[in-house]
Amino acid sequence: MKNLSLKNYIIKKNYKKIFTPSPSFPIENLLGLSSNFSRGDEDFKKQFNSVVKRLKKISGQNKIVSIQGPGSLAIEIGLLNFLKGKILLINTGYYSQRIKKILLDAKKNYKFLTKIDTINYQNVKNIKKKYDWICACYTETSIGFKIDIQELSKIAKKKQSRLFIDATASIGIEKYHNLADVVTFSSCKSLFGFTGACFVGYKKDPQNKINSFMLDINNHINKKMTGPNTTIQSLDFVLKNYSKFKKKVIMNKKNFMKKFSKFLIYPNKNQPNICTYINKKVRAGKNLIFYKPRVQNRGSIIFHLGSGHLNKNINKINNCIHTR
Amino acid sequence: MKNLSLKNYIIKKNYKKIFTPSPSFPIENLLGLSSNFSRGDEDFKKQFNSVVKRLKKISGQNKIVSIQGPGSLAIEIGLLNFLKGKILLINTGYYSQRIKKILLDAKKNYKFLTKIDTINYQNVKNIKKKYDWICACYTETSIGFKIDIQELSKIAKKKQSRLFIDATASIGIEKYHNLADVVTFSSCKSLFGFTGACFVGYKKDPQNKINSFMLDINNHINKKMTGPNTTIQSLDFVLKNYSKFKKKVIMNKKNFMKKFSKFLIYPNKNQPNICTYINKKVRAGKNLIFYKPRVQNRGSIIFHLGSGHLNKNINKINNCIHTR
Repeated sequence: MKNLSLKNYIIKKNYKKIFTPSPSFPIENLLGLSSNFSRGDEDFKKQFNSVVKRLKKISGQNKIVSIQGPGSLAIEIGLLNFLKGKILLINTGYYSQRIKKILLDAKKNYKFLTKIDTINYQNVKNIKKKYDWICACYTETSIGFKIDIQELSKIAKKKQSRLFIDATASIGIEKYHNLADVVTFSSCKSLFGFTGACFVGYKKDPQNKINSFMLDINNHINKKMTGPNTTIQSLDFVLKNYSKFKKKVIMNKKNFMKKFSKFLIYPNKNQPNICTYINKKVRAGKNLIFYKPRVQNRGSIIFHLGSGHLNKNINKINNCIHTR
Repeated sequence: MKNLSLKNYIIKKNYKKIFTPSPSFPIENLLGLSSNFSRGDEDFKKQFNSVVKRLKKISGQNKIVSIQGPGSLAIEIGLLNFLKGKILLINTGYYSQRIKKILLDAKKNYKFLTKIDTINYQNVKNIKKKYDWICACYTETSIGFKIDIQELSKIAKKKQSRLFIDATASIGIEKYHNLADVVTFSSCKSLFGFTGACFVGYKKDPQNKINSFMLDINNHINKKMTGPNTTIQSLDFVLKNYSKFKKKVIMNKKNFMKKFSKFLIYPNKNQPNICTYINKKVRAGKNLIFYKPRVQNRGSIIFHLGSGHLNKNINKINNCIHTR
């Protein structure tokens, strides 16, 4: 394999067609890699600053902290370090329930959380009480559902609540993340990076005191441990060309929606770009990787990140999907 | 760059000579990469099982949990989920003090830690009281010092204490990790992998109840969140050829010790393979990356992981180091 060109290596390494929340493997992941070190390596420092600058723009936040870890770690660090008082969770399914679990666990260890209520997304217009924070998943992948974040933001503003958004499945490819006061996401889904990094974006500095080396956001702000260096490098050239990647996802989504229009479950306004939930099971096949959801459902959830490495025929990827 | 062969790409990407705890960038990091998904991707599952099997052998532990995160996360998860009762920390410097900080923080949230004492490493033979657990860093990189883990293990056995070892800077390249009851390490130092993964190795199952989604080891055992997939892939071919990498580090260390013999601080038995502490400052230079320690010292700490990508002239790397 040593004598293979990068271009042919990437073709070889994308032999599987992928319809999962993890993206395909574009050549851009490789272009920024090199040996590196966190302190005193000026080349890496430049890359790091460039990636963080682009993530600030994408997330619409003034400050971004990068951490080695999965999206759920960013959620936990975000919730623990920023939230206080009365909290309302918008229930959309499995991943919103994860936020609730993290909050309930946190309430056992810390006094700054005084109340945690839940409301189903359908009833969001009927919020009566006043809350300090409202928490929601922008795209709930367990049911392939996108909330109306503009509407939620209006409600939050009216109630003088701040907004915490889990953007694990929406970052980059959906609009209006700037409406969140705190937003969390990871490297390895719609940002097309390697696994290994998660991010907390925010506007006002955190204030809670956290009794944990890993969960205290200040230890990450102050770079007290090794950061997600390789993953930052894998994002460097992807983010420099991010509009191209976003366009591919949206084309792929549109093509899929057209092809499977009779099996769609939600109206357009609740259709996320990352995936589509259809009321039919799909047929497995050789070198096809479909999403295995963490919870049972009555159909299939197909993700649209599998064309990131392609430069033409992006829509052809959907030709190999057949319903049972 | 697209038409460059992998071999020439790796040469290009290692233009910096690196003397830090992060390794150089060997071609083996690339050979296992591909698009992948955690659930239902049989190719990735095989890679994952192969890497875990090799890590069990390297660490001398029956069970290995892999987690997205830095070495410090594995330390915190290991300490929280396994330790209870009276704890003795062996003080060797900065990184052992980090273990203490994590323990003191944990004691605020949980009752299973009843006492945390500290003893300096020099006094380890004078341990009087009985402890449930003894905790130590195998290699304390902040002062380039390796403890005698066989002696510590004998003391622990005599006192019926269990042994927690932070192996962040020793895993793979030092012997006797099997003597630990719980051992923690990361992907991106002496294992020559990408950043992004940390590991907890253990023999007996954890028993503590932890109020945190990320810090409860059971959520990682049960794969409740995205694992360090890309990093696991970057380790695949490195670990298949690990004896070669280990040999390079040891050759590099020996050559350095010989060249700088008059500046050595510790006797052979306390010399770790990962680095050497000398009582002289070294001269900076173009495309040389030296270690910037987190604490001041009177000399230099030179790491020996910079030759991982080389196949010949491994020792020549030390020719560019000059003292001030």
